[in-house]
Amino acid sequence: MSTSLNPSNPTPTPRTRVVREPQRAVYDREAVNQILDEAFLCHVGFVVPGQPDAQPFVIPTSYGRVGDTLYIHGSAASRMLRNLDKGVPVCITVTLLDGLVLARSIFNHSMNYRSVVILGTATLVADPAEKLAALRALSEHIIPGRWDDSRQPNERELQQTSVLRVPIAEFSAKVRVGPAEDNEEDYSFPTWAGVIPLEMTAATPIEDTRLDPGQEVPEYAKHYSRKR
Amino acid sequence: MSTSLNPSNPTPTPRTRVVREPQRAVYDREAVNQILDEAFLCHVGFVVPGQPDAQPFVIPTSYGRVGDTLYIHGSAASRMLRNLDKGVPVCITVTLLDGLVLARSIFNHSMNYRSVVILGTATLVADPAEKLAALRALSEHIIPGRWDDSRQPNERELQQTSVLRVPIAEFSAKVRVGPAEDNEEDYSFPTWAGVIPLEMTAATPIEDTRLDPGQEVPEYAKHYSRKR
Repeated sequence: MSTSLNPSNPTPTPRTRVVREPQRAVYDREAVNQILDEAFLCHVGFVVPGQPDAQPFVIPTSYGRVGDTLYIHGSAASRMLRNLDKGVPVCITVTLLDGLVLARSIFNHSMNYRSVVILGTATLVADPAEKLAALRALSEHIIPGRWDDSRQPNERELQQTSVLRVPIAEFSAKVRVGPAEDNEEDYSFPTWAGVIPLEMTAATPIEDTRLDPGQEVPEYAKHYSRKR
Repeated sequence: MSTSLNPSNPTPTPRTRVVREPQRAVYDREAVNQILDEAFLCHVGFVVPGQPDAQPFVIPTSYGRVGDTLYIHGSAASRMLRNLDKGVPVCITVTLLDGLVLARSIFNHSMNYRSVVILGTATLVADPAEKLAALRALSEHIIPGRWDDSRQPNERELQQTSVLRVPIAEFSAKVRVGPAEDNEEDYSFPTWAGVIPLEMTAATPIEDTRLDPGQEVPEYAKHYSRKR
């Protein structure tokens, strides 16, 4: 089926097992890593401890991956950091939108997408070497090559930055690809049907107004793309 | 300052007051609506009731807006629907990514973005008229004009679809625009600096393989864009 990818390593937990549209579920780590590596924006969900009504918060932030570990900037989730001594349960969701699927019936309209959900406990990175490596991974994840071209972080800046570690251990992905799937009797309905592909694209870089005229636009800025 | 927009209607609650980078905060409803209307993907955060550890879940889904109400498909959040009698506290976050900001120092690298956070209680839409209007709003929000070109939902399909209502009452937005902001002493550091603009773009529509050859590509598919 066009909308399913068979899991090569199906080990969901009851919490990460895909309930809706289970044929779209992907539990294979390599496939999940590919999605994580193409995207760089995640949405982090957490509950502020001590609140009576279990109010969740969802914050967008960037991330980096080192093996089976995801790193995020703590500064992007300061509400989360208030009570982090024991770690905080989080859900990290990464979504790539690939297209709009226009079926004959309203009911069968859909989207093509690839998304990953990771459940885990976020803990503060205390070790200075791991912290620096995580920041470098975050930077290189977004713009490979940029770290070495930049003024390196100093002691004060490192102290101002918090980094959180989330193991990529309990996860699932959901993928939809391919054309619309209409009910057989709807194929004769007189309307256009198809897919509008969507993609995040980069435009021509805007040079800083105070840029040293001798500085040329580096390749990573001139031809920025997430395709690997 | 290039990174701030002054709120014309600053009424954050303690829960929606922006803690980090407060100069980026926007509490104005009109500005928030503009972000909500340009995007169509949100990330919904909720806690599955009855779980001991307040584990949040974050699910990507589309939405529609009717005035001060946001509607989402219940089908996208089936875990959430298990105990919906009294409504479920949710956080709905919408993020538009506008660019990568390359500063001279690693520390001052940033992103240009516009994001909205809505806190509220999601409740099931029971009234059939409101449900149909909400589904139409969801469809028209993503592809204006598509609803009337499609085979309308029948009774059975409507019963299979759940719609949730979330009031846009407790909200805030965060916006960053403009160039890098380096420390004064870093402007002489020998590297390129600037902004890589990012945008979601649509490619040429892919016609359905079973398309009636008499059907031309409609304008909304040929020139799909979120700019309003």
